[in-house]
Amino acid sequence: MKLGSLKAGRDGQLVVVSHDLAWCADASHIVPTLQAALDDWDSVAPQLQNLATDLAHDVIPKQRFHEHDAASPLPRAYQWADGSAYVNHVVLVRQARGAEIPDSFWEDPLMYQGGSDGFIGPRDPIPLPDEEWGCDLEAEIVVVTGDVRQGASREEALGAIRLVGLVNDVSLRNLIPAELGKGFGFVQSKPASAFSPVFVTPDELPGWKDGKLHGPLMVDLNDKPFGRADAGEDMTFDFGTLVSHLAKTRNLIAGSIIGSGTVSNRDADGGPGKPIDQGGLGYSCLAEVRMVEKILEGEMKTPFLSHGDTVRIWMEDEHGHATFGTIEQEVVKV
Amino acid sequence: MKLGSLKAGRDGQLVVVSHDLAWCADASHIVPTLQAALDDWDSVAPQLQNLATDLAHDVIPKQRFHEHDAASPLPRAYQWADGSAYVNHVVLVRQARGAEIPDSFWEDPLMYQGGSDGFIGPRDPIPLPDEEWGCDLEAEIVVVTGDVRQGASREEALGAIRLVGLVNDVSLRNLIPAELGKGFGFVQSKPASAFSPVFVTPDELPGWKDGKLHGPLMVDLNDKPFGRADAGEDMTFDFGTLVSHLAKTRNLIAGSIIGSGTVSNRDADGGPGKPIDQGGLGYSCLAEVRMVEKILEGEMKTPFLSHGDTVRIWMEDEHGHATFGTIEQEVVKV
Repeated sequence: MKLGSLKAGRDGQLVVVSHDLAWCADASHIVPTLQAALDDWDSVAPQLQNLATDLAHDVIPKQRFHEHDAASPLPRAYQWADGSAYVNHVVLVRQARGAEIPDSFWEDPLMYQGGSDGFIGPRDPIPLPDEEWGCDLEAEIVVVTGDVRQGASREEALGAIRLVGLVNDVSLRNLIPAELGKGFGFVQSKPASAFSPVFVTPDELPGWKDGKLHGPLMVDLNDKPFGRADAGEDMTFDFGTLVSHLAKTRNLIAGSIIGSGTVSNRDADGGPGKPIDQGGLGYSCLAEVRMVEKILEGEMKTPFLSHGDTVRIWMEDEHGHATFGTIEQEVVKV
Repeated sequence: MKLGSLKAGRDGQLVVVSHDLAWCADASHIVPTLQAALDDWDSVAPQLQNLATDLAHDVIPKQRFHEHDAASPLPRAYQWADGSAYVNHVVLVRQARGAEIPDSFWEDPLMYQGGSDGFIGPRDPIPLPDEEWGCDLEAEIVVVTGDVRQGASREEALGAIRLVGLVNDVSLRNLIPAELGKGFGFVQSKPASAFSPVFVTPDELPGWKDGKLHGPLMVDLNDKPFGRADAGEDMTFDFGTLVSHLAKTRNLIAGSIIGSGTVSNRDADGGPGKPIDQGGLGYSCLAEVRMVEKILEGEMKTPFLSHGDTVRIWMEDEHGHATFGTIEQEVVKV
């Protein structure tokens, strides 16, 4: 089933959304919010599934689902932890500054604890006070877990994955070097992220296999194709491994969102990926194309996002429908 | 007023607690949880204050307040971000490994984004699967904010502080070097923290002044005095500055918890603080006494926490009562 949250209050109003995202049905008689559903998933999910079946059979009241009216499915969450599972991305970023990556990066997932107290909606603008901060998109896959016990294995962690979705994990690239230089990770350099209009249960995703979501992650920048990388390829750590990594020393509470990191594919020849207009699969963030430019041409040419730029992120199902809806954001001055 | 959450469900049950922490009154007819109160503070706080007044005047039903029955006041939160406002602590830690701290550390707060999805109760054991992880206590002051807009000044941030409390920010010291070496901050090296049995509004704290809480932070280790540092001294960044730092690039949502970092005082001669049994004010974490041992004696002698060790953290009011109740935790094998 597909679940979304219409904008309402701090946590939105839970709706079950039709497979093609055209329609939705109010779920508030079952449970008011997605977080509340995740808190009590075993008893609530079957009821929501029945509602989804009734919606598909057109036997209950329904309304049009407008992605513009959707908040991020969890408008605020108790946890947002983001991995860097596509190690190719990490290699490129470090290669561009002449640094090797340690061998351990291929065995020990890189992850950061992100701010989860407030996410912006999938069609909300990206508020950017200062273009000099170097605003970048990062297109990623995310999962939402149930409760996960401390020390959970990869298999247990996989079994605790309730929902899958997309995120635009906005980064302020020019604030990152000084902040990471202090040694304690990201704070100011990661503003609020936006998630896809709906999150989807793994059983409804043919591309979900062994903790990875296969298929092209579509990224357009200013209405031009920018990224078509396959999220199932070059993912060094699957989501079971990422969730298990996060749970090594503490329990994770239901509603935790864990990200894949920027999706990134190597070129067919094993080197850095080519832009789409050169026959490649392109990129899921600007930093990566800038790194490739530096490696191949000696200097970074593509600028970071400016006010007025638009970003679109989605995946498509077998009918060409957007599986999770579309994240579509314009960068605006505030 | 003083607010606590009795253990119940995922978010506890909100109670108003008497000044001496002996009694409490159920607040669930006003609002079910502390998070819900923070979500709607302007309309809810006056009602809770009336309840506190009625409790003080003994004109409403009351029950004994047992700290053992208390969860952390926010058993799960949307944000936990921890500063390092006592730069003396940072200097010591770096000095022990022969590193200078950059001048910027005196002007630009160091902060990390912590996991906030699940906190343990103030009297709950610290579950430690492996003593080799190097378990340490860290006694700190925390504040809880209302909504804070992106770009808020120090003064605006100060005005958004709703509650003050204590935390034992448990750290796994032996996991930290490898994790920080990866460059993305803490994930596995920060297990679940425990907060004080109650959080208190600033108006009820005579020691609250200009965004700092003055007075000794009491830390006992295995029933012996270990730390008596004054939380109002040597705090380079007040809470207004810390909250404003966190809000530079995004809004903060009501219920965000921001920590001071480990409280640490210099010695009267300006050098590292002395142990209590040598006439000093002691320490608020084991790492610091170990650093002082290394600096003064060439090697670290005090071990990290073992199974069976107990930690007690509290502050006292003018009557010798524990202002926030007492965090009291035993390290247990799991």
